[in-house]
Order: sequence, then structure tokens, then C-alpha cells
Amino acid sequence: MKEIDMEITLSTTKKTKPQADKLEFGKVFTDHMFIMDYITGQGWHDPRIVPYQKITLDPSAMIFHYGQSVFEGLKAYLTSDKEIFLFRPEKNFQRLNKSNERLCIPPIDVDKVLEALKELIRVDQGWIPDAEGTSLYIRPFVIATEPYLGVAPSDRYQFIIIMSPVGSYYKEGIHPIRIAVEQAFTRAVNGGTGEAKTGGNYASSLKAQEVSDKEGYAQVLWLDGIEKKYIEEVGSMNVFFKINGEVVTPALNGSILPGVTRDSIIELLHHWNIPVSERQISMDEVYQAQKAGTLEEAFGTGTAAVISPIGEFLWQGEKLSVQNGETGELSKKLYDTLTDIQNGRSDDPFNWITKVEQKVIQN
Amino acid sequence: MKEIDMEITLSTTKKTKPQADKLEFGKVFTDHMFIMDYITGQGWHDPRIVPYQKITLDPSAMIFHYGQSVFEGLKAYLTSDKEIFLFRPEKNFQRLNKSNERLCIPPIDVDKVLEALKELIRVDQGWIPDAEGTSLYIRPFVIATEPYLGVAPSDRYQFIIIMSPVGSYYKEGIHPIRIAVEQAFTRAVNGGTGEAKTGGNYASSLKAQEVSDKEGYAQVLWLDGIEKKYIEEVGSMNVFFKINGEVVTPALNGSILPGVTRDSIIELLHHWNIPVSERQISMDEVYQAQKAGTLEEAFGTGTAAVISPIGEFLWQGEKLSVQNGETGELSKKLYDTLTDIQNGRSDDPFNWITKVEQKVIQN
Repeated sequence: MKEIDMEITLSTTKKTKPQADKLEFGKVFTDHMFIMDYITGQGWHDPRIVPYQKITLDPSAMIFHYGQSVFEGLKAYLTSDKEIFLFRPEKNFQRLNKSNERLCIPPIDVDKVLEALKELIRVDQGWIPDAEGTSLYIRPFVIATEPYLGVAPSDRYQFIIIMSPVGSYYKEGIHPIRIAVEQAFTRAVNGGTGEAKTGGNYASSLKAQEVSDKEGYAQVLWLDGIEKKYIEEVGSMNVFFKINGEVVTPALNGSILPGVTRDSIIELLHHWNIPVSERQISMDEVYQAQKAGTLEEAFGTGTAAVISPIGEFLWQGEKLSVQNGETGELSKKLYDTLTDIQNGRSDDPFNWITKVEQKVIQN
Repeated sequence: MKEIDMEITLSTTKKTKPQADKLEFGKVFTDHMFIMDYITGQGWHDPRIVPYQKITLDPSAMIFHYGQSVFEGLKAYLTSDKEIFLFRPEKNFQRLNKSNERLCIPPIDVDKVLEALKELIRVDQGWIPDAEGTSLYIRPFVIATEPYLGVAPSDRYQFIIIMSPVGSYYKEGIHPIRIAVEQAFTRAVNGGTGEAKTGGNYASSLKAQEVSDKEGYAQVLWLDGIEKKYIEEVGSMNVFFKINGEVVTPALNGSILPGVTRDSIIELLHHWNIPVSERQISMDEVYQAQKAGTLEEAFGTGTAAVISPIGEFLWQGEKLSVQNGETGELSKKLYDTLTDIQNGRSDDPFNWITKVEQKVIQN
């Protein structure tokens, strides 16, 4: 077990853990959290694990005004052998640093932060649920904390990790969702922040989501901000199409989030010798394929849902069914393969798993 | 004096006020603040004035993750007759509601909030500086406070007003600034959040600002996100050009903030019978005008700076001088006219001023 030089203050009280069958996404948090501070000139300092507690900031703290923030989402899984697995966590912290760069936030030390996360997980290891489909959702995030109203990068930040035991993100599970192609609102554009995981991208997406929700659609499909023609993402997921045997996902063009699940799926498909290409794909191409009967599958991918099959698109008033609204074979195989690796039910041929060594359990 | 039903808790200690000649922008705040809460089903409630104090939130509060926030900026002025003036404050709260609408935040009651602001100003009236060019900067803002990691509109918010005595926003005063035309980064695009005053717009602008700052330019000129051709804003200000006798400012196309100062300038120019048009204007048009010797003036406009003359543009490696880097006649006249109205040094023919009735001063 690698040592990291940090202070650990244990909670004197323990919260009641929710029942495994009553887990909701992101509402209940574990007993502890990790915090680290940044001040210009001093760098990142004072890494510490403390009891889960509220954050106290001046009302002029920049996070409340100018949205300088980034975050990540990953999961810890408890295998049937009671081992604790993380899925490609270094990818998340590397991506955090890319987001940091775009948002003018100083980079973190990926190795040190990963060690800190492992220690936090050990401290709260009793919080990882073990029922089918459950996991411990991990939310690292950085916020600008300098108390100053000037529009400029903050000279103070906090990096924080909180954790929440979760069931499936979508209450409907692996069942396909219905998607509305967004025509009015734009998620991101080249030169903007689309490829960074920053709060503003999510804030700006809420309105389109609200509108599509009223019309009975679970998520929106985002088109490019320039021509409103090319597909970018679905809700807060990456998106894949299987057309005439070929799997297609939009190329990372600067306005698309480089998903860890997206990357893993591309690697899996290569491994299986299934043709996969990262390229520009228009909604018109998807429409033509659906009409021609060659649109075989469509699915969103992300850490929360892993794979989210798409059963129907609404585009320009027309409903386009995919796989008769059923989960496709490839979607199912990808979901099973990824979740089997994540939960230790199968081998890990790609070295995606990081095991968290455990302390002797005391409770 | 209109009554508003709210609780006022006065501070038992008073902070030391900064000296008039040492005022910085947005670093020191008055003794009190206004807060109001929102919970779905209950609406906005519990409006109150309390001693200026820190905000305490759960680390899962949505503002830290998904950027759901809006804000405003306006100023209170102390006239030489010791009257307190606000400049078109209803416009700011109306715009706040437009921003709220885009960000899925419930609207506030403009009249009630304006009354609350007046009361807050009365409570802290001793904080309004009276030296030339100084004012009390007022920052209303709304943050999403629900402790939940789902990507959805929050069901809890806080509306807060804090106030800060300020000198001039630009330390150089009314002197012209040098501007770099931004080629790589994009501020906003149609269908995005450009016309809302939300944190994400400012977070995404920091990187371009950082780059131009290193090259010695005070602000960047933002081009449209689609063709990178048409002018949108300058830094966090609206922008005007005087070309061959005509004043031109980009039309409000959905990705430009509808500035209160912008609106006031257009009204002033109409009043003076100076030709002014809100239309699309390309950087190429500005370039051609500069080459032809018809680019007479250029300036940014905003609450903080009022008028900020532009003395030079950097575009595609070429430096374009405006007015030989001096402040133009119209820029100066607009600055003087607006600040004279704001500070009670002249009449108010447009009914732009809201007077804040004062309490008997006790200190």
C-alpha cells in the first residue's frame, strides 16, 4: 500500500447506510470526503480526509459568480470476492487536468490524487454496496474559492472528492430510452468548453432537457452548433450507431466530451474485430439508414449508465424507431462485457481495473 | 417609503471602510447582505437582511457541479447633494429573470426585490463612497443549492445581494485599451447561453483572456461562433463602432448580452440625432474602414466601465489603430453624459434614475 502524506480525521458518528434496493443516484453520501487546497504561490497543499461536512465560502467566492469549476465521475465496485475495483481511474484524473487546462485551473498530481482516492475508499469501504448493478459513485470536483468579483482566474481553489452509493442511474435499467433530436438549443461549439467537464456545459443543457422531458423524451440528441446537422452527444453521454454492420461514433472534434466508456467501447470493438469508426455523422445519415432498414442499433455511453440503448428518435416531428424499441444484441453484449469486467465477473484483458487494497474491516 | 415584509438583522460589529483612494473592484464588501430562499412548492420565501456572512452548503450542492447560476451587476451613486441614485435598476432585475428562464431558475418578483435592494442600501448607506468616479457596486446572484448530483434543475435556490464600494473598474480610467480579436476560442453561439448572465459564459472566456493578456492586450474581441466573422462582444462588454459618421453595434442575435449601458447609449444617440444601427458587423468591415480612414471610434460598454474606448485592435497579426490610440470625442461625450446622469450632475431626461430614500443617518 503506497503511502500518501495526508491527515485523516475520522468521523465520530456514522450515518445510516441506505438499503441496497432503495439506492438513488447522488442523494446520500458516505461518512468522509477528501479535500485539498490551492493558493497561487503555494500550489496544491494540505490534502486531508475529513468527516463529510458542509463547505463554507464567502458569498463573493468566484464559484458563485463565474462558474470556474470542473468535475469527474467514476465508480468503485465490490466484486463477489469482496475485492474493490476501480475502472480506469487514471483516465478520469487525466481528463480532469484537461478540463482544468481549459478552465485556467492549475493541474492536480494524478498519481497522488489517485492514492488519496484509494485511501478515502478504504476509510469508507463499508459504504460500497454489493447488490447487482450497484456501485459507489465517486465525484471529484474543483471549485474556484477566491473572494473577488473581478472576471479573472481565481487564485484559490478546493479539490474535493465525495462518494455516494448508487443503484442504476436510469431507473428503467438497460431498457431503451426515447430521444428527441434538439433543434433549437446548442450544447457546445468549437472553441467553447464542450470537451471539458465543466459546470456551464450542464447548466446550459437543462433547458433543452426540460422541454424534451415535457414531450416524454428521456434525453436530447445534441447536434453541432454550427450547421445543426452533425451528431455530437446524447444528454450527458457519448453516442454510438450501428449502421449496416459498422459502428460509428462522432469523432472528438473539440466540442465533444472524450468519454472513458466511449474509449473503452472503441477498444472492445477493435478487439472483437467489429468495424468501428470515429467520424462525422449527420442526423440525415441516421435518418436515411433508418428508412433503408440499416440502422441496426443506437446507444449512449457514460460512467453512470454504462450503455443506454436508444429505442426511438424524434426528429423534425417524425418518430424513428430503432430495433423496434428493443435492446440490440451489440448494446447488450457491450453492457455485459463492461459491467462483468468492472464487477470482477470476468478477466480484465485490457488492464482496465485498479484494485484498491483493503484495510482490515473493523465493523 | 414602500414597506417590504422582511426581517432585518443588524450587524453588531462594523467593518472598517476602505479609503476612497484605495478602492479596488469587488474585494471589500459592506456590513450586510440580502438573502431569499426558494424551494419547489414553496416558492421564493424568507426575504431577509442579515450581517454579511459566509454561505454554508453541502458539497453536493448543485452550484458546485452543474453551474446553474445567474447574476447581475449595477451601481448605487452618491450625488453631491448626498442623494442616492440607482441607474435603471428594474432593467437589471428584468434581465435577471430572462437569465433565470434560460437556466431553468424560477423568476423573482422584480418590484419586491428592488424594494429589498433599496432597504439593503439604506442599511449600508454609509458605505457608498463619494469621491469622483466611485460608487457602490451591487451584485445580485442566484445559485442552485439542492444537494443532489443528478443533472436536472435544482429544487432549491438562494437569491443573494452583496455590495462592494468601488473605484473605477479599469485602473487606467477612461484611457483607451488595446484589444486582440479572438480567433481560436468562442464565447457563445446561437442556441447557447450567450444572452444570459450566467457563470459558465465567464468561465469559458477566461482562457482567451489569459492568452491575450500574455500578449499585452487588455481584452479580447469575440467573433460569432459559427463563421468567426461577425463581431459579438468585447471582453465582458458590448461593443460599438463609429464608421463614417454612423454608430454601429452588433444586433442582439441570441448570443449577445443585452446590456443596460448598451441600451442607454442607443437611446442617447437617437436623442442626439446621431445615426445608430443595430446590425451584423464583420471584423472585415471594421478592417476595411480602418484602412479607408473611416473608422472614427470604437468602444466597449458595460456597468463596470460605462465606456471603455478601444485604441487598437490586433487582428490576424496586424495592429489596427483607432483615433491614434486616443479617446474619441463621442466616447468622451457618452461617458460624461452617462456618468453625469448617474451622479446627479445633470438632468435625467429619460427617467433612468431611481432615488433611494434615506433613513436618518446615525453615524
